[in-house]
Amino acid sequence: MNNLESIAKLIRYYSLIMSTEAGSGHPTSSLSAADLMTGLLFGGTFRYDLDNTHHPNNDRLIFSKGHASPLFYSIWAAAGKLTEQELLTFRKFTSPLEGHPTGEFKYTVAATGSLGQGLSIGVGLALNAKYIDKLPYRTYVLLGDSEMAEGSQWEAMEIAAHYKLDNLIGIMDVNRFGQRGETMYGHDLSVYKDRASAFGWEAIVIDGHHMPQILTAFKQALQAQERPVMIIAKTIKGKGVSFIEDRNGWHGRPLKKDELSRALAELGAVDKSVRGSMEKPEELKPAERFPSNIQPLSYAADKPVATRRAYGTALERIFPAFPNMVVLDAEVSNSTYSELFKAKYPDRFFEMYIAEQNMIGAALGLSLRGNIPFVSTFAAFLTRAFDQIRMSRYSNANIKFCGSHAGVSIGEDGSSQMGLEDIAMFRTLLDSVVLYPSDAVSTEKLVEEMAQHRGIVYLRTTRKDTPILYRNDEVFRIGGSKILKSSKADIAVIAAAGITVHEALRAYEELKKENIMVRVIDLYSIKPLDSTTLLHAARDTGAVITVEDHYAEGGLGEAVLSALSATGVPVHSLAVRKMPRSGKPDELLAFEGISSRGIMEAVRKIAKKR
Amino acid sequence: MNNLESIAKLIRYYSLIMSTEAGSGHPTSSLSAADLMTGLLFGGTFRYDLDNTHHPNNDRLIFSKGHASPLFYSIWAAAGKLTEQELLTFRKFTSPLEGHPTGEFKYTVAATGSLGQGLSIGVGLALNAKYIDKLPYRTYVLLGDSEMAEGSQWEAMEIAAHYKLDNLIGIMDVNRFGQRGETMYGHDLSVYKDRASAFGWEAIVIDGHHMPQILTAFKQALQAQERPVMIIAKTIKGKGVSFIEDRNGWHGRPLKKDELSRALAELGAVDKSVRGSMEKPEELKPAERFPSNIQPLSYAADKPVATRRAYGTALERIFPAFPNMVVLDAEVSNSTYSELFKAKYPDRFFEMYIAEQNMIGAALGLSLRGNIPFVSTFAAFLTRAFDQIRMSRYSNANIKFCGSHAGVSIGEDGSSQMGLEDIAMFRTLLDSVVLYPSDAVSTEKLVEEMAQHRGIVYLRTTRKDTPILYRNDEVFRIGGSKILKSSKADIAVIAAAGITVHEALRAYEELKKENIMVRVIDLYSIKPLDSTTLLHAARDTGAVITVEDHYAEGGLGEAVLSALSATGVPVHSLAVRKMPRSGKPDELLAFEGISSRGIMEAVRKIAKKR
Repeated sequence: MNNLESIAKLIRYYSLIMSTEAGSGHPTSSLSAADLMTGLLFGGTFRYDLDNTHHPNNDRLIFSKGHASPLFYSIWAAAGKLTEQELLTFRKFTSPLEGHPTGEFKYTVAATGSLGQGLSIGVGLALNAKYIDKLPYRTYVLLGDSEMAEGSQWEAMEIAAHYKLDNLIGIMDVNRFGQRGETMYGHDLSVYKDRASAFGWEAIVIDGHHMPQILTAFKQALQAQERPVMIIAKTIKGKGVSFIEDRNGWHGRPLKKDELSRALAELGAVDKSVRGSMEKPEELKPAERFPSNIQPLSYAADKPVATRRAYGTALERIFPAFPNMVVLDAEVSNSTYSELFKAKYPDRFFEMYIAEQNMIGAALGLSLRGNIPFVSTFAAFLTRAFDQIRMSRYSNANIKFCGSHAGVSIGEDGSSQMGLEDIAMFRTLLDSVVLYPSDAVSTEKLVEEMAQHRGIVYLRTTRKDTPILYRNDEVFRIGGSKILKSSKADIAVIAAAGITVHEALRAYEELKKENIMVRVIDLYSIKPLDSTTLLHAARDTGAVITVEDHYAEGGLGEAVLSALSATGVPVHSLAVRKMPRSGKPDELLAFEGISSRGIMEAVRKIAKKR
Repeated sequence: MNNLESIAKLIRYYSLIMSTEAGSGHPTSSLSAADLMTGLLFGGTFRYDLDNTHHPNNDRLIFSKGHASPLFYSIWAAAGKLTEQELLTFRKFTSPLEGHPTGEFKYTVAATGSLGQGLSIGVGLALNAKYIDKLPYRTYVLLGDSEMAEGSQWEAMEIAAHYKLDNLIGIMDVNRFGQRGETMYGHDLSVYKDRASAFGWEAIVIDGHHMPQILTAFKQALQAQERPVMIIAKTIKGKGVSFIEDRNGWHGRPLKKDELSRALAELGAVDKSVRGSMEKPEELKPAERFPSNIQPLSYAADKPVATRRAYGTALERIFPAFPNMVVLDAEVSNSTYSELFKAKYPDRFFEMYIAEQNMIGAALGLSLRGNIPFVSTFAAFLTRAFDQIRMSRYSNANIKFCGSHAGVSIGEDGSSQMGLEDIAMFRTLLDSVVLYPSDAVSTEKLVEEMAQHRGIVYLRTTRKDTPILYRNDEVFRIGGSKILKSSKADIAVIAAAGITVHEALRAYEELKKENIMVRVIDLYSIKPLDSTTLLHAARDTGAVITVEDHYAEGGLGEAVLSALSATGVPVHSLAVRKMPRSGKPDELLAFEGISSRGIMEAVRKIAKKR
């Protein structure tokens, strides 16, 4: 106990000095959880190989309250893995100790800092332990009370209980203050207890600064059966420094140098040599998974198939070659066709219900343990989780997204169900891959490429059946494109993807009758774009028409514009520019000017000028 | 009672025939709530002026489960406001009866269809009733059980309880089936009851097909004190047609013609002449609000002020001219400076805690009652609510968004806190306005323009203090720009906004010393863009450099590219292209090549080619 008290004091010392040195940071948010973390990591609960951060059976710790990063780094210093000198590089440009934890720091599991996301990541890690790797490691998530207002946390709560994740432990640091004032419930822990219980968790209420209670709680949590555990700890923000304890106005505020002196005087003698120890995990490994061959495609050239369906059959077909795939869906698997995978490999499919934010967070957690998550829902509903998608990139996640029901061409369901901004959303992620295949063959081939590629990939699928355009042995690469029609007399390039490729081909046939020739390019890889082919075609023809079932901003049109900006070749963008609505798919495509007719009108205008 | 049963039967009849006629739609989801809605609207509870949908004291009804649109339209037909013929136009391109309710239909309060959003809209309407208009109208929200998995619903639950919204009634249609299968809890209503209670609501459990219980529940709900009410109704999906009742596989599936015949035979004789009636609301109006004059600006030219701070002072300054403004913030009002408004007009400020999705939904609700909501948080965290923002556009909402802490220039907090994709996100909304002022004067002027403009406007603000660039009497318009530096010898245009305007001005001064002249344009209105000025400058100089503290995709650079695509003038885009991290603001700007030095290097390359 004495040892733990010394460690906690050292951690408090570290948290204070590093934020003062940086001139920014969140010391009070760190101090409130110092005893909890000391008890967890060094009190005999947490099992971790400090020299092997990738040990499959390591317990895992996520700081959902990522702003308590001083505490996070101090923990590992107290474990002997960082020096005081290194801690003092906190928040500097060249330091791995960033303002909120990122993968630059080797002990970070996932990048956090956007609140309310850590518990979902924990769900993913726990799902992996219980259902995939079948290892006994525990996942611990440090939560702020203020961030429990985020609905995403309650998605994680309900899903964790539903999947009986008794290997997931939340630790709620109820220090009663948010950033600008008191939380809704202050120190009324009964609110959190009642809610956690109502959501199916075992709730343990403790004094977050009483080490015996802390240790007992963690011991009790290890005994959990069938239910996840929420330790709800009453804490004091700024605990340990009287003049910053339990008061508003100290969130995100480092102590000035004179204040620090006072604080350190209060703390008293700090034993800087004390170190905490952690027992290593049991030497257990997940069963190895061996890839095997996959079946080739056998699409009949004359039978139209929806690309959304091809996504489902692809998942099922390629799994033998990628045995670490897992598939997640948000209550629409009969629409996205991920149900085809579910039928064949139910152990690798996780229904995530109508809770997209948690689905993405869990996918991140799963990906961090070597799985390849394929996550699907309607393209429109992926916007529900843009913050989680954004943050997953900062964890260098290897997640594959599929958004179905792209564009106005879904028809009668109307605007709420139409994905019209999803290409723009996914394009913003650094080094993301954005794919939009036009037929079932290319869809299946690209799903295979997705699985091979390391990083975030987004695939957009279409609701209605579309004709087969390619042979079963055609090759499709990320960054590639297909020239479907080409002649020396082409007066324009039609750059299309997905549903509009078919409209472009129809336009081609009609224009040919009028002796107007156009080049048609299937730009199935919107990012990275096949600039070489586009540039060549642009210079050849002198005019480019882009056509997409997507809003005008940030989509295929602007991607092409960016690629061709140095050429001086005019680019005419056809896109959804009018308020979308219910109607037949063909009516809507025509209404938005992105049907074959709209393309033909654009081409004829160009033809007139020549 | 007999009358209500007849009406319910008529509504079932309508729901079935219209979806069969359309060949799509959700009849079973409509049938499960038919008795609940019949009891609510025609059983003496709902008070509504059928000839005045805008009556300020009308009760309001939101279909959070928007896919039950057949039920929604059938209700109003049963009230005598639609004919059977009109119902049969359901989902047709020319019909106001869209697949999910939109404003095309006059009785729709807000467009729904993306699940889990209706309760937040209800929160906004209820906040308006209780705290702003001070009218006794009630807001009713029909909820599906499956969509209660959405975290956003629990944000609405907690906020509604916190604000004691006893004028908000949720009606949960627990029909136990989602789209692809059973929900997590089936018909175990105790789960919903315990959770609603734990979240501070009064929970009333009923049989959703027993009219006496239904009417009693609504009566009881009218007596609510200090707590919102959740009526949890056990229902049968497809109720009324035996072969589709309570079974999986019938979600979103209209009956075929032969199935319809069987169903109608089961229903039996339908009294098509029966009509339901609603009592009109009390003739009460909200107090009128009279605009008065606002103070002019008085910024000292030599004192740098952060644009985020100017946002706060602007809210406070312009309120007298816009007395129907309300301000919402998500626990960061001391960072966004909305706290300045809160201090002066606390009755018009609503703390929405760390729950951005609910904040936007509530803002939509508030806007629907004639308020002008100004909604703020960090730009990065607005991505949390992209789906709600997307859907608000489909309600033609009049919401003003402010995202602070834009870009890498926030410094040490690091990537999780940096808004780098927000311009792209807001540009995708049809006819949205996207503003990014560079100094405090232009910020304040643009906040005023925001309030005047009808529609969605997004304003991006900067964390650090920046110099005053403009005179206090300068005029700024949506769609405008400012040429800050111009000469006949300009070899390039630097098109910048926000923080990079200052970098551009620094670059200008340095380049001038090298006898290289550049035009500097403050493109504070990114959408709509001042194409005229840009085109003129592009043609004048022959080269354009865009520079933005934002990712390369979908932002200022691509907006400029789109505007200049016909000119053939090369556009060089400087943007954030490397993984951002903690560091000093100036270090990070330089690292990303968007500092004055990055601009100068780009200009020198152009100069060399001349």
